Amino acid sequence: MDKKIKKATVFFYEPVYVKGFGSVVGKKEKESWLGDWFDIAFDEDLWGEKSWEKCERKMVLKAVEVALAKAGINENETDYLIGGDLLNQIISASYSARELGIPFFGIYGACSTMAESMMLGAMLIDGGFAKNIACATSSHFATAERQFRNPLELGTPKTPTAQWTVVGAGASILSKQGEKFYPKITYATTGRVLDFGIKDANNMGAAMAPAAAETIMIHLEETGRDISYYDKVVTGDLGKLGAGILFDLLNEEGIKACDNYFDCGIEIYKENDNMNCGGSGCGCGGSVLNGYFIKNMIEGVFKRILFVATGALHSPTSTGQGESIPAIAHAVAIETE
Amino acid sequence: MDKKIKKATVFFYEPVYVKGFGSVVGKKEKESWLGDWFDIAFDEDLWGEKSWEKCERKMVLKAVEVALAKAGINENETDYLIGGDLLNQIISASYSARELGIPFFGIYGACSTMAESMMLGAMLIDGGFAKNIACATSSHFATAERQFRNPLELGTPKTPTAQWTVVGAGASILSKQGEKFYPKITYATTGRVLDFGIKDANNMGAAMAPAAAETIMIHLEETGRDISYYDKVVTGDLGKLGAGILFDLLNEEGIKACDNYFDCGIEIYKENDNMNCGGSGCGCGGSVLNGYFIKNMIEGVFKRILFVATGALHSPTSTGQGESIPAIAHAVAIETE
Repeated sequence: MDKKIKKATVFFYEPVYVKGFGSVVGKKEKESWLGDWFDIAFDEDLWGEKSWEKCERKMVLKAVEVALAKAGINENETDYLIGGDLLNQIISASYSARELGIPFFGIYGACSTMAESMMLGAMLIDGGFAKNIACATSSHFATAERQFRNPLELGTPKTPTAQWTVVGAGASILSKQGEKFYPKITYATTGRVLDFGIKDANNMGAAMAPAAAETIMIHLEETGRDISYYDKVVTGDLGKLGAGILFDLLNEEGIKACDNYFDCGIEIYKENDNMNCGGSGCGCGGSVLNGYFIKNMIEGVFKRILFVATGALHSPTSTGQGESIPAIAHAVAIETE
Repeated sequence: MDKKIKKATVFFYEPVYVKGFGSVVGKKEKESWLGDWFDIAFDEDLWGEKSWEKCERKMVLKAVEVALAKAGINENETDYLIGGDLLNQIISASYSARELGIPFFGIYGACSTMAESMMLGAMLIDGGFAKNIACATSSHFATAERQFRNPLELGTPKTPTAQWTVVGAGASILSKQGEKFYPKITYATTGRVLDFGIKDANNMGAAMAPAAAETIMIHLEETGRDISYYDKVVTGDLGKLGAGILFDLLNEEGIKACDNYFDCGIEIYKENDNMNCGGSGCGCGGSVLNGYFIKNMIEGVFKRILFVATGALHSPTSTGQGESIPAIAHAVAIETE
């Protein structure tokens, strides 16, 4: 693996606090062992809306509302909204931005979106351009399935390597000011796009694992940290197969990630045997980070985590044209004092 | 129009130079009066590739290559690539990023992408996180048409308000260091998402004009500048109808934009009577900015421009579900000393 790329890690001299955090999930996700950590859960796929797409939009809005309330600020005090999702033209984020009225930067990083939004947000705050920034992302099984794969009505069986898109949204409010107990973003390592030739759109884990391995290795090398420095190294949604490949790739480089490794995609459907390789989607890492992790950091259970969100950057068109699946991974170090 | 939103404009204390600039266009665009200002033009839609999507990717890569060469740096000296396009999952940008190997931030702002990438890039450079950043965007009539509207093979007629997606790509290299004659980014005004209820996906100009008007007004108010301060106020692709609406909206507020107004979409197809309301697409503003404008700024013809790129943030799904079209406009002030 080529590690000779130039410095991809930046350090934040000014504190960037995760001052607000909101998470919204669906029924299946609520039933998980992580369920109690989410702020809001709804029972049926549409949540009272007329389409799944509108439901996903509502999830983003609610996650941002909860996060803003916890941060004790309102939309007018929020300098920027940075967000994206899996849907074409990121309509969940764009239409939410319309409701919120906050100056908006739309981003697309597939399932790496939560990390991408947080690292851009942290740079804008440390750079002096903003006091408060809302970062948000979402995914919904039904909107993703019909866009990326097949209409649900077809009842297409899932292949063994497939993952299930999490019904979830997550939002963080990054802030220049905060109390000591709020987690802070300390480092951000931006990934580059890698492609290991995987062409099966039902095997995202394998496509994304090499990107995660490279970004983690670069992060450790550039920060001079050992992987054991972190209480948890948290990947977004590699799933069972992808996590295994990540372990192998890191092992080859002499990096042991075992006890402190956590994949949100594996954990969120852990008790459910029907979920193939686990969960996926921007909302998977986004909701688990802003639910389970940030809350446990504030309670002192975890002091240092490395959040590594991976994204598969293909489209149905690129797959249809025989292209392999490029992937990216961004790493954000979040720490309490 | 509600102007009571909080400060959306930032000023760059550190110089952020536009040190490299590349533009690539197709045949129709080359035939325009702007044609000689573009760096590369190709004669047939596919440019030797097997699909229009692959052609668009090649356009982005070539635009970035030209821009890097002019800046006198290579990929390894480029800290970040910030890019996006109109295609689902921004595959033109993502697959280009795979070839370039530069740490990548994918963005989606529809036709506002060039401005979005430049303002984020300028903030990252002024914030001290990067020395050189490549910003890139693209569009292609054939890829956009079949994704957003109908397969070209149908031969669907265009409505009178429709615009034609420009076959074009543009790239800028932003840099911390540069000679005095390079244009500098001085201010950036980030837009919020507005929606004036337009539901016709063939009437983008009307959907985007109110966003352009608001962002221009906020920019002038927050910088204390008069619109006549700028040699040119350049919108990306409002087209004939949208430009007229922009004039009306600005006039209502006592702002006269006449002699110094320039819409890339109107100008690029000016001599061609068959192009309805004009050109559109990320590549329209992207190629004209990095072709005609930056070159004319270096030659001293223009000293101060305000580049206002507008984006329509709908998707075929949102339109199909009866949603109106939300829009955004970002403004970047580019000046020479």
